[in-house]
Amino acid sequence: MTELLQRSATPYVETDRLAVDTLRFLAVDMVQAANSGHPGMPMGAAPMAWALWSRHLRHDPTAPDWADRDRFVLSAGHGSALLYGLLHTFGYDLPETELRGFRQLGSRTPGHPEFGHTAGVECTTGPLGQGLGMAVGMALAERMAHARYPEITDHHTYAIVGDGCLMEGVSHEAASLAGHLGLGRLVVLWDDNSITIDGAVGRSSSDDQIARFAAYGWHTQEVADGTDVDAVDAAIARAKADPRPSLIAVRTMIGHGAPGVAGTSKAHGSPLGEELAAEAKRLAGWEHPPFSVPEPVRAACKELALSGARERAAWNAAVAAFEVDAPQRAAEFHRSLARRLPEGLGDALLAVPGEAPRATRQSSQACLKAATALMPELVGGSADLEGSTGTATGGAVVTRDDYSGSTIAFGIREFGMAAVMNGLSLHGGFRAYGSTFLVFADYLRPALRLAALMRQPVVYVLTHDSIAVGEDGPTHQPVEQIESLRVIPGLQVLRPANDAETAEAWRLALERTDGPTALILSRQTLPQAAPIPASNVAIELVATGSEVALGAEVAEALTSDGYDVRLVSAMDRSTYVPDPAAFTVSLEAGSTVGWRGLVDLAIGIDEFGTCGPGGEVMAHHGFTAAAVLARIQEHLR
Amino acid sequence: MTELLQRSATPYVETDRLAVDTLRFLAVDMVQAANSGHPGMPMGAAPMAWALWSRHLRHDPTAPDWADRDRFVLSAGHGSALLYGLLHTFGYDLPETELRGFRQLGSRTPGHPEFGHTAGVECTTGPLGQGLGMAVGMALAERMAHARYPEITDHHTYAIVGDGCLMEGVSHEAASLAGHLGLGRLVVLWDDNSITIDGAVGRSSSDDQIARFAAYGWHTQEVADGTDVDAVDAAIARAKADPRPSLIAVRTMIGHGAPGVAGTSKAHGSPLGEELAAEAKRLAGWEHPPFSVPEPVRAACKELALSGARERAAWNAAVAAFEVDAPQRAAEFHRSLARRLPEGLGDALLAVPGEAPRATRQSSQACLKAATALMPELVGGSADLEGSTGTATGGAVVTRDDYSGSTIAFGIREFGMAAVMNGLSLHGGFRAYGSTFLVFADYLRPALRLAALMRQPVVYVLTHDSIAVGEDGPTHQPVEQIESLRVIPGLQVLRPANDAETAEAWRLALERTDGPTALILSRQTLPQAAPIPASNVAIELVATGSEVALGAEVAEALTSDGYDVRLVSAMDRSTYVPDPAAFTVSLEAGSTVGWRGLVDLAIGIDEFGTCGPGGEVMAHHGFTAAAVLARIQEHLR
Repeated sequence: MTELLQRSATPYVETDRLAVDTLRFLAVDMVQAANSGHPGMPMGAAPMAWALWSRHLRHDPTAPDWADRDRFVLSAGHGSALLYGLLHTFGYDLPETELRGFRQLGSRTPGHPEFGHTAGVECTTGPLGQGLGMAVGMALAERMAHARYPEITDHHTYAIVGDGCLMEGVSHEAASLAGHLGLGRLVVLWDDNSITIDGAVGRSSSDDQIARFAAYGWHTQEVADGTDVDAVDAAIARAKADPRPSLIAVRTMIGHGAPGVAGTSKAHGSPLGEELAAEAKRLAGWEHPPFSVPEPVRAACKELALSGARERAAWNAAVAAFEVDAPQRAAEFHRSLARRLPEGLGDALLAVPGEAPRATRQSSQACLKAATALMPELVGGSADLEGSTGTATGGAVVTRDDYSGSTIAFGIREFGMAAVMNGLSLHGGFRAYGSTFLVFADYLRPALRLAALMRQPVVYVLTHDSIAVGEDGPTHQPVEQIESLRVIPGLQVLRPANDAETAEAWRLALERTDGPTALILSRQTLPQAAPIPASNVAIELVATGSEVALGAEVAEALTSDGYDVRLVSAMDRSTYVPDPAAFTVSLEAGSTVGWRGLVDLAIGIDEFGTCGPGGEVMAHHGFTAAAVLARIQEHLR
Repeated sequence: MTELLQRSATPYVETDRLAVDTLRFLAVDMVQAANSGHPGMPMGAAPMAWALWSRHLRHDPTAPDWADRDRFVLSAGHGSALLYGLLHTFGYDLPETELRGFRQLGSRTPGHPEFGHTAGVECTTGPLGQGLGMAVGMALAERMAHARYPEITDHHTYAIVGDGCLMEGVSHEAASLAGHLGLGRLVVLWDDNSITIDGAVGRSSSDDQIARFAAYGWHTQEVADGTDVDAVDAAIARAKADPRPSLIAVRTMIGHGAPGVAGTSKAHGSPLGEELAAEAKRLAGWEHPPFSVPEPVRAACKELALSGARERAAWNAAVAAFEVDAPQRAAEFHRSLARRLPEGLGDALLAVPGEAPRATRQSSQACLKAATALMPELVGGSADLEGSTGTATGGAVVTRDDYSGSTIAFGIREFGMAAVMNGLSLHGGFRAYGSTFLVFADYLRPALRLAALMRQPVVYVLTHDSIAVGEDGPTHQPVEQIESLRVIPGLQVLRPANDAETAEAWRLALERTDGPTALILSRQTLPQAAPIPASNVAIELVATGSEVALGAEVAEALTSDGYDVRLVSAMDRSTYVPDPAAFTVSLEAGSTVGWRGLVDLAIGIDEFGTCGPGGEVMAHHGFTAAAVLARIQEHLR
């Protein structure tokens, strides 16, 4: 490609420089049009982006969903104008009108890249550090797909990260896991511009990032001049040749070419202003109207896109051959990609429920084992609690030497786990789950929110669901967590009460293709309670999960007292409709905030828990049949 | 001390070994009595704990609140039995009956250490990684206190961390900040036992932790034999002599001395069982009854405690001299320690409100500047958003060369910031605040929960409070965050609507001494609305913060339509009592879950936001006077 790019006849010496300035000034024009946005990052990072996209990235702009494409993640999502410029210039479905609508309501060019909103955007970024985590997940997905379908899987994952991404804790969790798993097809370009919103990076950090990533087992390089497209190109080539994940520190200047603000935080998050934008263009010798892509650049990108299309055609031929050679595996490949469930899954889950009392974490483990046996695409693990959370399926653990397993040992890295789950899911071909204690859902919440926003059907297995945890005390006892999850738009929160509901919950989670699910499961043994038949009732008790059994005790006592009582198990509270004729009482060992608007009496826990054996702690906080009865009878009098 | 300890006449060669076994078997006995808990960590880490407590830790068990004591943080909080053993043996107020009540309801020995519950416990730990973060905060507090009161401040902060602490992302944020700030009085002992709950650390991590911490600018050492008390002692001495924060990797064996389970994950979280416990004691030559502290150990600890008491007496003398030499600064020191507010603070805050419309983040900045001028103990900063969040007070930035400033540049490390805020507050003598965008409260939530559990009066300044953020799009637009904060027990959530309410919110936050406060502030300009006088009304509108102005518009329109309308600004929703005679309507640009039980009609946003200019986005989601009026009129018809 390089030769082609250097044969141009513009006033510029070569097309590389012209293309880089195209990306720079498209970004400047977008930010100016919106009078809002971040010009500095695109101006500094355009050369590395161009080096990557023109000389390495394997993609076909006409088929942004091509399964074997290289993935590109702009972890520094505030530089969205750079990504939109690339997509536009390379011929993705993002016309100039969309660039002119940058950051406006209804445009396909929102302030931060949004997955599902713009063709070619691989994930939603902006919350810093998470793009790196998702890139690790995508790179892991590639190796796991390669282990399953080596004939048709061979791509790379690239990311551009900023200083902020590397300061965030999730960068540690994700990079450490990537190093451990030897994800050699991951190449991360660090836009090393030494500037954050508040000023110089040196104001708050003295990290030696190169040494840090080397400590994670990464291959590391530095490119001293980030405007040198050839140097970046060569570094990427070396990174790809090394078997380790790679970090390339590319020294850049934020707001490159904008006199007075370049190299300072002033270039970070504010438009340059018309005058300075014009001055930057004048200094660069840029004489094109706003939103221009000069013909040589357009021609070069067209040629690159055609080359990508040819690669995709070759891949399609390989897939066709694969379909002939291994029809069953090929069918499985297509089924996984389409997120269709295998036949028999429903029956396999229906076979799980038994009659013996057990914890729903154990019911869940039985479901997960049954599903894993039928779904090679179902992969996941735990943040080091697979024994406690019931996510040990018996599937082999994925290692750097063998990616064929279905179990991922995420380590004590909840946030990293959830970000990697997002990457696995976004990559396609996999359904990802991850587990920890419910109380530690707080640690992974930022990635869970992104899963909901990106509508990724990942599954969180969250066990040890209440103060019944007991002896581990209030640090390990969830109280506000269930409610705090229910308020996240698009997250399905299910709290099953027994085997049958747990199997149903897993079915709902796996059938869902447009959003995440949180399964809230008990540590303690629960009975396999039979449902109480519906009738006209005076009292309706509604409980979820672990408290359904307690509700049954209370219902029985109230019935003996002569009341007509119904017990409802509301595994999914969002589907519960209270009986308007009955006195309604909710029973859930957690925050009552969301119940107060639904029922006449909300019984729950609005304070932190206490250390002690689980049963005693429950009693201490009013969760016994006698205490609940007393609360209800107060209101009936 | 060493000589004294070696003069013992037990069957053991020296008191060190006897003391180490005392700590080991106290832990074993506690876990056995509870039949619940983590014996492995105390058995492996007892030697390093003894080396630290017998040869370095400067403390007085009779005065656990002594301001100039060394701080000890057990970041690996599941090893609580080790800490309780130390406290008991050294004569803190933790008698044998409490050890026998380990993990039981009402005991002072809960499953994980809880601040405020047990004398000598410096912070609540268990949620991994946060102990390290709090230790960094305490070490920073020491240097900042030293800069203010060098005459009477001179102590160290020690922490024992586990593999899990170092895997968590917050370890990166905290360690990076500690390295940057050159916190040389922080000494971290890493219980390097290569085991986590699910098995070998090597299953999920290949980090070179020594190289990693060196990359943060830490001094690093390794102790190959973690049972060698002298070697740990020497390493701690070298760590203290070095000007950098120190990590000492102490190679240990989890469950040391318990045949069959030592060195495996079986020793991590389950009791040994009576038989194995007895066998471990037999192998060690331990012939004492359960819960014994042999006399030589008791004597040694008594001597050590006396030595601590003497040091405290000397410090008291120094304080007395300081009171004479610098009465004003001494008074300030005592006032800060006691968390008393300075005179004039209320008036200073009352002087803030003006008449010009402005964003509450700007009102807040004025309040913070006024408070900072009067309160040298008020310190904090931002996770790299000080300009945007209005937390730039003009106070000097704390650096490794000068800790006298009041501004901490936390870097893009929300979770680390919140953990460090906890450490600053726990240390005493400081009131800590920290800021970021409200949507990124998700990143710091685990530390915020701990602040609430520990009742620390830290203040979170959370700005950009709704979808009105606009162009940055849904990744930056909070929707569910306000409600998700309201459900955390003990957290005061305040959303002021104008200057006057913002000043009142800051007063409430600073007057509070027993828990954290979250201030929810607007990015956009708000009017200085006058309150509407109370009367008997047909319609009660209740709004918070940014939506109060919208509520005023709606109220005016309804009034023109002939309705009796009252508008209530519910800065603190927990204090809002709806008028039972009125049709009540809430107006808040966030999740409606918590409002549904309070009012007849809850108007809010239960979906993710959209990118576009803030006003347009608000309109798109129904936040205009016309749309709100229409919603209300539907119900009035």
